[in-house]
Amino acid sequence: MNEYNVDQPIYALATAWAPSALAVVRTSGTGSVELLSRIFSSPGRLMNAASKTLVHGYLRAEDGSNIDEVVLAVYRQGSGYTGEEAVEISCHGSLTTLKRVFVRLEEAGFRLANKGEFTFRAFMHGRMDLTQAEAVEEIISSRSVKSQEQALDRLSGRLSARLNEIRNRLVGILASLEVQLDYAEDEILEEWVYPVSEVDSIISSLQLLSSTYAAGKIWRDGAKVVLAGAANAGKSSLFNFLVREDRSIVSPIEGTTRDYIETDIDLKGIPVRLFDTAGLRESGDLIEAEGIRRTQALIDEADLIILLADSADPVIPSSLADDKRLILVHSKSDLAPAEGHGISVSSVTGEGIEDLVDEIARRLGALSGEKDQSLVIDSERQHDYLEACISCLEASREASGQSVDIIALFFQAALENLGYITGEVTNEELLDRLFSDFCLGK
Amino acid sequence: MNEYNVDQPIYALATAWAPSALAVVRTSGTGSVELLSRIFSSPGRLMNAASKTLVHGYLRAEDGSNIDEVVLAVYRQGSGYTGEEAVEISCHGSLTTLKRVFVRLEEAGFRLANKGEFTFRAFMHGRMDLTQAEAVEEIISSRSVKSQEQALDRLSGRLSARLNEIRNRLVGILASLEVQLDYAEDEILEEWVYPVSEVDSIISSLQLLSSTYAAGKIWRDGAKVVLAGAANAGKSSLFNFLVREDRSIVSPIEGTTRDYIETDIDLKGIPVRLFDTAGLRESGDLIEAEGIRRTQALIDEADLIILLADSADPVIPSSLADDKRLILVHSKSDLAPAEGHGISVSSVTGEGIEDLVDEIARRLGALSGEKDQSLVIDSERQHDYLEACISCLEASREASGQSVDIIALFFQAALENLGYITGEVTNEELLDRLFSDFCLGK
Repeated sequence: MNEYNVDQPIYALATAWAPSALAVVRTSGTGSVELLSRIFSSPGRLMNAASKTLVHGYLRAEDGSNIDEVVLAVYRQGSGYTGEEAVEISCHGSLTTLKRVFVRLEEAGFRLANKGEFTFRAFMHGRMDLTQAEAVEEIISSRSVKSQEQALDRLSGRLSARLNEIRNRLVGILASLEVQLDYAEDEILEEWVYPVSEVDSIISSLQLLSSTYAAGKIWRDGAKVVLAGAANAGKSSLFNFLVREDRSIVSPIEGTTRDYIETDIDLKGIPVRLFDTAGLRESGDLIEAEGIRRTQALIDEADLIILLADSADPVIPSSLADDKRLILVHSKSDLAPAEGHGISVSSVTGEGIEDLVDEIARRLGALSGEKDQSLVIDSERQHDYLEACISCLEASREASGQSVDIIALFFQAALENLGYITGEVTNEELLDRLFSDFCLGK
Repeated sequence: MNEYNVDQPIYALATAWAPSALAVVRTSGTGSVELLSRIFSSPGRLMNAASKTLVHGYLRAEDGSNIDEVVLAVYRQGSGYTGEEAVEISCHGSLTTLKRVFVRLEEAGFRLANKGEFTFRAFMHGRMDLTQAEAVEEIISSRSVKSQEQALDRLSGRLSARLNEIRNRLVGILASLEVQLDYAEDEILEEWVYPVSEVDSIISSLQLLSSTYAAGKIWRDGAKVVLAGAANAGKSSLFNFLVREDRSIVSPIEGTTRDYIETDIDLKGIPVRLFDTAGLRESGDLIEAEGIRRTQALIDEADLIILLADSADPVIPSSLADDKRLILVHSKSDLAPAEGHGISVSSVTGEGIEDLVDEIARRLGALSGEKDQSLVIDSERQHDYLEACISCLEASREASGQSVDIIALFFQAALENLGYITGEVTNEELLDRLFSDFCLGK
């Protein structure tokens, strides 16, 4: 974690890299105000600005010319996001302007922040724990109101509180064990009894939390629904019908969709990431072959696969025949009537589309869990540590006949895994991996 | 201009619509603070906040749950961009969050701003004139440091000052004419003499300003440089070599580039918008045919056309043979040595690329005018009114033998055209057209 040196003043674009009315460049670190005052039109006003106030003026180039008209939001130490002295620069959302601002900030002594470095500093300064830090990024990338609400809930510290409650119960058990360890063998003590019901209750709590991960993931990323089928089966038409906007080129030429196209849609309140794929057929065409390889990768990861087949002659690839994720669709029902099982759909008349949408929603509803689940996790990392914690507790139960010092080891390991979730226990690699997934400027 | 009702509180996203660390939603209008306080976690602190201060808290949903953690920047009347009471909401850059914030703001009584409406209000409240308002948008869309500097220069009011100086000279002439008009015909007055040298001097000033438009346009939009040539001539390879990044699919299959691909590059300091086009050939392929139609449209609008031809057998379309915008390039010089005129280039070895870049820069340098031109316009609207003003003055000169009341009409028309540039004279249609070109949130 040497890259995340907390002593240096850093900067990064906090808004998106695209032309817009405004852009915000964030800075943080001791001395930020002083460094900025050297390249600002009203250094005195900036230096004397109270915390949480705005100062209007111009960023100045080396030769004294103006780089941009800006408003600076000043945060004195302890009052802002990172907990450090910090200044947010609100400038025109011009890419040319931003490039000039970045160069000027480097000249002034700021270095470009690493991904997640602002949040890392907030964590280091005790402004939030790791579940809250992760929630920040989860809010930004949320694809549904549900997952945004769940992340905001975690940001507010509710998950931290629940984990702390469990942690305290484990600490209680460990304390009773350590009393045993502290005494010599010949001293008379009441024999320690493995607290079966307390451990079972803790495991249940952990399992309940861990089990929310599958649902959380769908609410966060959207369920992956892949449209597959032979070339010319009508995938692009159905895709367009579902998204109701012309995103892919529809033409009667085979193999038009050379790569997959994806878009996010909302199906009865469930976020869906819909993929239109290249035809599932052998191809001598170099570009198409690559597209087909990617299609297979998409199918492997899909939550649901919608296989379009010709009504007259449905061909189901043997690899998918028994796949529980499969929904068979007879396309072009307006041209030929469908027979047998599967849903008949016409992207021309819209016939059957409603049935298909209902079926998709029904299948995904089962995957995404109860809609009113109050505390949900969607971090793979948290899920893994919760499972590790559960394993340690189960191992302690199996070892309940062993000596107390061995049992204590399992409880210590369980506590350590819980500590990794909040960041109470941590290491460089963990932090590095966690924050490197962040977007820049956060 | 009824849509731009200045009495209503408005809101709009001021940053780009893309996931990012932060996003800023701007509001403006009398009562903004009070409306926001109804959906904010700390209404009292917000209501009492001093101008240009920051208030931290939560935006609240109807049911009291949190929509997002936000920082509000409060501007009391007369202190912010629009001159109105205004609040800028800094929230997480999550699209899901933003959608919820928009809905909540509508519920609170804000309406979505029209394009450019914040700047329109700044204009209506006398915070800036129209050349400054246009400069705001020009800064945002600038593609080069040069055009960004030029726009910042106009935003600071230098163009307004120059136009006012010219305006005052015209007002002086008109005043001397009106003295004549005020007196009855029989009163003895010195005969009015048409001020030839003063008018010529004014026309020169206006022409100098107007002539900067061609250069300003190139600095603003980038010069359009189109790569054209037969399919498989190596356009995509050259394109990639020039942009030094893999933006288009390069494959040995003819007709791979089905539509044009564009990117902005910097050629020796001149902003260039480079277009890679579909092959210039007849095609039975429906998609390609569309691509070729667009290629022709691109060529029509290009500042320069780089025609790639096979070294062994260069084919120049007859429509381009005498085109002054043409640069003939022999591609794949590593495969076959070039003969005759044109520049030989190999995208494999890089041979000739430097010569080509030099030639492009030389040709564009001539188009983009003097690099140190201090006051430059890049607005078609301003250019048109400057030309109209010049026409009126030229007409007045031609009418110099006529009666003073007729001459006065020409000077009044000249002044009116100048007034349209700054917005001193205005009408709904003009404002509507001008501000509707703005990006949202500005």
